Amino acid sequence: MQPLKNDVTLYPGERLDDLERNGLKIIQRADRFCFGMDAVLLSGFAWIREGEDMIDLGTGNGILPLLLSAKTEGRTFTGLEIQEESAELAERSVRLNGLTDRIFIRKGDIKEAAELFGAASFDVVVTNPPYMKGDHGLTNPDDAKAIARHEICCTLEDILRVSRKLLKEGGRLFMVHRPFRLTEIFREMSDNGIEPKRMRLVYPDVTKEPNMVLIEGRVGGKPYLTVEKPLIVWQEKDVYTEEMQTLYGF
Amino acid sequence: MQPLKNDVTLYPGERLDDLERNGLKIIQRADRFCFGMDAVLLSGFAWIREGEDMIDLGTGNGILPLLLSAKTEGRTFTGLEIQEESAELAERSVRLNGLTDRIFIRKGDIKEAAELFGAASFDVVVTNPPYMKGDHGLTNPDDAKAIARHEICCTLEDILRVSRKLLKEGGRLFMVHRPFRLTEIFREMSDNGIEPKRMRLVYPDVTKEPNMVLIEGRVGGKPYLTVEKPLIVWQEKDVYTEEMQTLYGF
Repeated sequence: MQPLKNDVTLYPGERLDDLERNGLKIIQRADRFCFGMDAVLLSGFAWIREGEDMIDLGTGNGILPLLLSAKTEGRTFTGLEIQEESAELAERSVRLNGLTDRIFIRKGDIKEAAELFGAASFDVVVTNPPYMKGDHGLTNPDDAKAIARHEICCTLEDILRVSRKLLKEGGRLFMVHRPFRLTEIFREMSDNGIEPKRMRLVYPDVTKEPNMVLIEGRVGGKPYLTVEKPLIVWQEKDVYTEEMQTLYGF
Repeated sequence: MQPLKNDVTLYPGERLDDLERNGLKIIQRADRFCFGMDAVLLSGFAWIREGEDMIDLGTGNGILPLLLSAKTEGRTFTGLEIQEESAELAERSVRLNGLTDRIFIRKGDIKEAAELFGAASFDVVVTNPPYMKGDHGLTNPDDAKAIARHEICCTLEDILRVSRKLLKEGGRLFMVHRPFRLTEIFREMSDNGIEPKRMRLVYPDVTKEPNMVLIEGRVGGKPYLTVEKPLIVWQEKDVYTEEMQTLYGF
C-alpha cells in the first residue's frame, strides 16, 4: 500500500502510469484491462467544444475522460462502467488528478444509461466497445478482460440505441472498432439515427491491413461520409510516425 | 476514316489507345466517356476463375471486358451498355482485337438485364457505375458523359438488385465507387443479399483522403469484411508506385 496525494492509495498489484499530458497519471492493474493504443487514437479523433458534456460508455479505468479532459475544453466528462473494480480504479485516478469537478465516474449498465442520466443529456458520446461478438471461444466469460473485449454485457446495437437516447439533436458519437465489422457498424448507426459522417482507418504501416477504424456519427446527419487520410502507426521498426508521437504527447 | 484490321474502321474524332496488355487496343472518343484509372484499378481488384462467366454492367467502351479477358482465365466476358454509340464503339474494339469468341457486347438497360440474360447466369458481376446521385446541377442530362457519371439511367440500388438476380449462389460482385457513399453501398449490398467481403481504399498518396474504393461482395456470404492494405497511387510527383505501374502494365 502506497499513499499518494488527495487521499488516494495505491494497492499491491497496481501501478501508476504517466499519461504524458498535463502531468496526468492513471492507476492500472496488469490483471485487468489496461488502456491501449485504441483509447489514445480515439482521444485524438474525438472533438469536443467548450462547454459540452460528454459520456464515455464502458470507460474501464477512465482513460478517455482523463485524456479528453486534458485535450478539450469540454465542461463535464462522465465515465460509465459496469465492472465495480474498474469503476473504483477510475474514480481513484480522477481524485488523484484533482479532477472531481469535471470528471464523474458512475458504476452502471450501459443498457440502462438513458434511465440513469436522462434522455438528450449529452452533446458527445465516446466509446471503445468490446470488439468481439458474443462469448465464443471463451473459457471464463466472467473474466474482467473478457467483458472488456467480448460482447458479453452489451452488444454494438445496445450501445448505439442507448447513444441515440443519451445524445441531443445534432450530438456526436465517436467510436473506435475493428474494420471487419464495418458493414454492421454503419448499418446499426444509421438504423439508430446516428449517421456515419467521418471515418479514419488505422494501418500499422503502409504495407499492412488496417487493424482499427475510427468513426464519427451525428444524430440526424445527412448521408455523406468523409473518409480521411490513412493513419499510419509505425514509420519504421520501433519508431512511431510523427502523428503518433504527437498523439502520445512525446 | 482509317481502315484497321478485321474489317474495323476508325472514324474521324476517334483515337486508338494501347492497353499495354497482350497488345490490346481500344477505340475511344474524347467527346464521350474515356476509361480512367478506376477501370484499371477494378480490373486489378477483380478475380475470375478459369471457365467463369462475367458481366460488366455499364461497360462504356468495353474497357473492363477487354482488360479482364487478358488478365484472367474467365470463359466469357459480357458488356452491357445502354448508350448505342458507346456499345458500337466497344463492339468494334472487340472485333479489332479478334476477341469476338470471348467478349460479347449487348446494347440494353441494366434494369432489364435479368430478363435479357436470365437469372443466375453469371459467376461474376463487375461494375464501374455512375458515382453521383441524380442529375443535380446538370445542364444536359442527355449528355453521354453525364449518363456515365450521374445516376440518370439507373441507381446503385437498381444495379445491386439486378446483380443479385444475374449472379449464381456464391457469385461475386466487384465494384469501384466513391468513399463518400460507403454507408449506402454496404447497406444496399447486404439488403440485396450480396455481403461485402473485401474492401480496398485508393489514396492518391499517404497524406491524402482516398478518392476511390474497391469492393468485393458475395451472394449469401457471411458478414465479415476484410479491409486490405491501402492502395497508394503516387510515389512522388508524376511517378506511380510500383503497384500502380504493374497495374498499368508498364
